[in-house]
Amino acid sequence: MAEILPMNSDTAPHPIEVQTAPGITRIALSSPPANALSIAVMDALMAALDAAEKDEDCRVVVLAANGKVFSAGHDLKELTAHRTDEDRGRAFFEKTMRQCSALMQAIVRHRCPVIAEVNGVATAAGCQLVASCDLAIASEEAMFQTPGVNIGLFCSTPMVALSRNLSPKHAMEMLLTGEGIDARTAREFGLVNRVVPPEYLGAIVGKYATTIASKSALTVKTGKQAFYAQAEMGLSEAYDYAANVMVENMLARDAEEGIGAFLEKRKPEWTGR
Amino acid sequence: MAEILPMNSDTAPHPIEVQTAPGITRIALSSPPANALSIAVMDALMAALDAAEKDEDCRVVVLAANGKVFSAGHDLKELTAHRTDEDRGRAFFEKTMRQCSALMQAIVRHRCPVIAEVNGVATAAGCQLVASCDLAIASEEAMFQTPGVNIGLFCSTPMVALSRNLSPKHAMEMLLTGEGIDARTAREFGLVNRVVPPEYLGAIVGKYATTIASKSALTVKTGKQAFYAQAEMGLSEAYDYAANVMVENMLARDAEEGIGAFLEKRKPEWTGR
Amino acid sequence: MAEILPMNSDTAPHPIEVQTAPGITRIALSSPPANALSIAVMDALMAALDAAEKDEDCRVVVLAANGKVFSAGHDLKELTAHRTDEDRGRAFFEKTMRQCSALMQAIVRHRCPVIAEVNGVATAAGCQLVASCDLAIASEEAMFQTPGVNIGLFCSTPMVALSRNLSPKHAMEMLLTGEGIDARTAREFGLVNRVVPPEYLGAIVGKYATTIASKSALTVKTGKQAFYAQAEMGLSEAYDYAANVMVENMLARDAEEGIGAFLEKRKPEWTGR
Repeated sequence: MAEILPMNSDTAPHPIEVQTAPGITRIALSSPPANALSIAVMDALMAALDAAEKDEDCRVVVLAANGKVFSAGHDLKELTAHRTDEDRGRAFFEKTMRQCSALMQAIVRHRCPVIAEVNGVATAAGCQLVASCDLAIASEEAMFQTPGVNIGLFCSTPMVALSRNLSPKHAMEMLLTGEGIDARTAREFGLVNRVVPPEYLGAIVGKYATTIASKSALTVKTGKQAFYAQAEMGLSEAYDYAANVMVENMLARDAEEGIGAFLEKRKPEWTGR
Repeated sequence: MAEILPMNSDTAPHPIEVQTAPGITRIALSSPPANALSIAVMDALMAALDAAEKDEDCRVVVLAANGKVFSAGHDLKELTAHRTDEDRGRAFFEKTMRQCSALMQAIVRHRCPVIAEVNGVATAAGCQLVASCDLAIASEEAMFQTPGVNIGLFCSTPMVALSRNLSPKHAMEMLLTGEGIDARTAREFGLVNRVVPPEYLGAIVGKYATTIASKSALTVKTGKQAFYAQAEMGLSEAYDYAANVMVENMLARDAEEGIGAFLEKRKPEWTGR
Repeated sequence: MAEILPMNSDTAPHPIEVQTAPGITRIALSSPPANALSIAVMDALMAALDAAEKDEDCRVVVLAANGKVFSAGHDLKELTAHRTDEDRGRAFFEKTMRQCSALMQAIVRHRCPVIAEVNGVATAAGCQLVASCDLAIASEEAMFQTPGVNIGLFCSTPMVALSRNLSPKHAMEMLLTGEGIDARTAREFGLVNRVVPPEYLGAIVGKYATTIASKSALTVKTGKQAFYAQAEMGLSEAYDYAANVMVENMLARDAEEGIGAFLEKRKPEWTGR
């Protein structure tokens, strides 16, 4: 199942597909069958995330994939081709790993919540993508794996995201054995929020996206940013920080509107300010 | 379900109720129906926690609530009333958020374990109260929610406590959707220790409290303090710190008594020294 | 169940038993019935771990126990005997706690994954041993407990390992009540990876060990080391660090061989370089 399927990263003209619905930007990996994260695909993903960041209409990003695989991770053929470089590939490997890390952090730092819609196998950096999203909904047919250890290349960057979602023993089992876990186990381990039949995947993700898109964009941005910032602080510092965030949030127009609407039992009108 | 129920924070003369049993102080929010955390309620809670801290007979604190709701969080009417202040409420919002953060940390830093007895809905700062306690036992009828995002005010301070109990994706689902989870899900997510039928809630909490009250107060204080201190350290520093705590604990009279009693197969007599 | 069983730590001539199979070193506590962690036992364990660290044939360590108990933790008789020292035991307690902390960290820092094979009761520092291992497989008859609070000596050093495996409320319940949890609950809490019938324990642990021993020793060492290092970093620092680890890993001979073998659909030949 974890086999990285053949793909030709050079000739794929549209490595990702972007669709928009009111408030929602759906970015789909579309280099089946493997949806490997070549430099071109990561460039395209980063550009699409940047565009969504700047698009005032966007309130939620869905990260999905076309085909039967979510993503098989890095493009091993592309990496291997650079072993014949003068520096044995060092510069290219550095470029790849830096770009990959920047991409994952762009998801975490994105002002919009990013929901992974996991249709199938997500391995290595593909599994890392799922772990890096704010929420993840998986098809019953999804499978998650960090198989780098099987090919001599430990999934050390995927581990950064994985170990911030799973308890250490669960993460270590995946990383050390290289074996996959099914969607149900991934839910039990905290890697995904929900597991649904494949035919309902789009609808359930859409429901989450629509729900979140109905909130104040400013409030959601404020909260998401604060979530990851305070997570790296000690308790006392985190409270000082979060209390300030709350005060500024209270003084924003959308909180005044939202609380007012709540007390007056009417629907709020957000302006994102 | 998440509706913040009407309450008149000005006329409630006894915002909390304090009862004591041998070794146990039970503090109940008693501003039903919402048990909102107004300034007056937070003042009263803080005073009751301080009194328990100084009461040598107190070994465990139970934090409970009268009525059908555990707590609906901040008093939105009280907050909103200050929007007409000259500073648009900033000073009052700062006071509220600082007091709330101090209250939550007073639970964490209390020398006695604090057990949340969750009878019903716990939302926003009410959910944060539960997350801040050392242990939490919930009725099957309890429900947990961080609905701030629905009213334009992200639950940023509740998030500090919540994200230290739940895995990131579970916490984010609650925070971003604003939807509630039932008691069973809260147990699965690690927010509460146990879910019991409502008619047994008091008895089960009493059993936990009595069990903990039967230990050496010094030992429990030492351990609780060390728990939160070492949690913020790296592994090596945490071991250096905890090893020192163990040595001092070994040299205390209660450890000598406790280990002696164990080896001699008799019941220990604690002195709290 | 949690009773610390009698043992005579002075006369046990072989406090541990070491067996090797291809790629696997199995270290078994063999001071039944309690398998207490006396100074002699901890010395022997540390020496065996050091030897495995230096043994190029060793790729996985299994930490097991002979008898019906995994380990009951520190040797309370040995500790108590030193209360008559001039310093009331302070120097000996310091030696014990420092040695214990060093032992636990030697497991975490060992270049080989360490798998706990938990046959029975694991209490106090015995429970800490399990929590400190990278993976843990438990018999259905295993039980886990941090009962120090019952004898006036809070399990403060066990807590360091425990609280890095369990969510705070689960850890606090064990630490404050001193009550044990069965193997199934330990799995649910994230303390062990798998629970198996006692008659299959050796075989299942063997399967895990054989699987991991079949990987590149260099890759596993790189990954395990990076796992614990990045866990103490903020997200951005962790990614910078892990990206560098990946680049060096890519340039190692075993990654070139592993990725090449994968692309050529053949079995890799590891050299550990």
